[in-house]
Amino acid sequence: MPMLSADVNRPEIVVELRELCSAYDRALIANDVDALVDFFWNDALARRFGVTEELYGADDISAFRKARVVDYSDRKTVNETLVTFGDSMAIAAVEFTATIAGSPRHGRQSQVWVRFADIGWRIVSAHVSHRVSPANAGAFGQSKAAAYVAAASDFLDMPIDPDFMPNVVNDIATMSKIIAPLMALDLSEIEPAPKFTA
Amino acid sequence: MPMLSADVNRPEIVVELRELCSAYDRALIANDVDALVDFFWNDALARRFGVTEELYGADDISAFRKARVVDYSDRKTVNETLVTFGDSMAIAAVEFTATIAGSPRHGRQSQVWVRFADIGWRIVSAHVSHRVSPANAGAFGQSKAAAYVAAASDFLDMPIDPDFMPNVVNDIATMSKIIAPLMALDLSEIEPAPKFTA
Repeated sequence: MPMLSADVNRPEIVVELRELCSAYDRALIANDVDALVDFFWNDALARRFGVTEELYGADDISAFRKARVVDYSDRKTVNETLVTFGDSMAIAAVEFTATIAGSPRHGRQSQVWVRFADIGWRIVSAHVSHRVSPANAGAFGQSKAAAYVAAASDFLDMPIDPDFMPNVVNDIATMSKIIAPLMALDLSEIEPAPKFTA
Repeated sequence: MPMLSADVNRPEIVVELRELCSAYDRALIANDVDALVDFFWNDALARRFGVTEELYGADDISAFRKARVVDYSDRKTVNETLVTFGDSMAIAAVEFTATIAGSPRHGRQSQVWVRFADIGWRIVSAHVSHRVSPANAGAFGQSKAAAYVAAASDFLDMPIDPDFMPNVVNDIATMSKIIAPLMALDLSEIEPAPKFTA
């Protein structure tokens, strides 16, 4: 049946979903893989887009969870919204901060929950991403050289004309090949300079 | 009412949604702002997480569309899935490629569509992101210096111990301050070196 205004955010459904979302959060922080897998719809149509991956079907999602090593110990929810429609559909959206691989991220997590007659509420679709700041947008280039040039140009406040960009990236990539033998030098036998302490 | 298996992907609902998704795609490529705004639920509870922004409420979403300059002329859908539940709810997921600011991206777009009794189908929630490759993951640091160090370390295949990272970033930031006067030199009066052509 089509939704009416009165179907949006019925208080008893909101309460039910808030509890489910809290339980999911606890499982995520604890990396409780069995619980996380069970929250998702066990169906080939379940889907999860993550920061670095696109997963289709419960099997792929489950395999991803099992293989994943994630340290969410400092994950903090900074904004949380929930909208429910009728008694069998809800959308949860969370913004969070976390330190991943030593760098601070601003994460966004969207989940669609559906209540099934036989198995109750399950997540049928999820999308997790990290906000890209304009300063970092250049880092999505597929080559490491392009990512380096974008970050260096941004750091030095030296904009590069997009027309020149392919040549600049090519030059940098060439330079890195020229210095490869130098980079490959084994310095393990060299005595490090003495370390001065105050 | 809770969903039954028979409610999932009813053929006539799938057809209806495919047409809506195609119309949305055309509006997006054409940057038809009025159409794009109209596809979204005109409500304070509508939500859109974009690559660089989190938008809450129809007003914010509309303001974002109006201010946005986006060139999606080479956007190509590479994977498209649609799941419908009952006759009033659907989830559309698209993977796409596009060149943004000169660099190729792999985008992911999730939309939740709800059919309202008075206004018909609307997007109530959307999440768009670009896939992060492991090589670029370091570029999310909040400072430009951190982004630069991550890209340089990755480009040169010189991993930096996370324990040392804050000091390395700090040193680089200090160096950039030291060379600031050099970078500020006005070279506009200097004759460029002659250009040799083959």
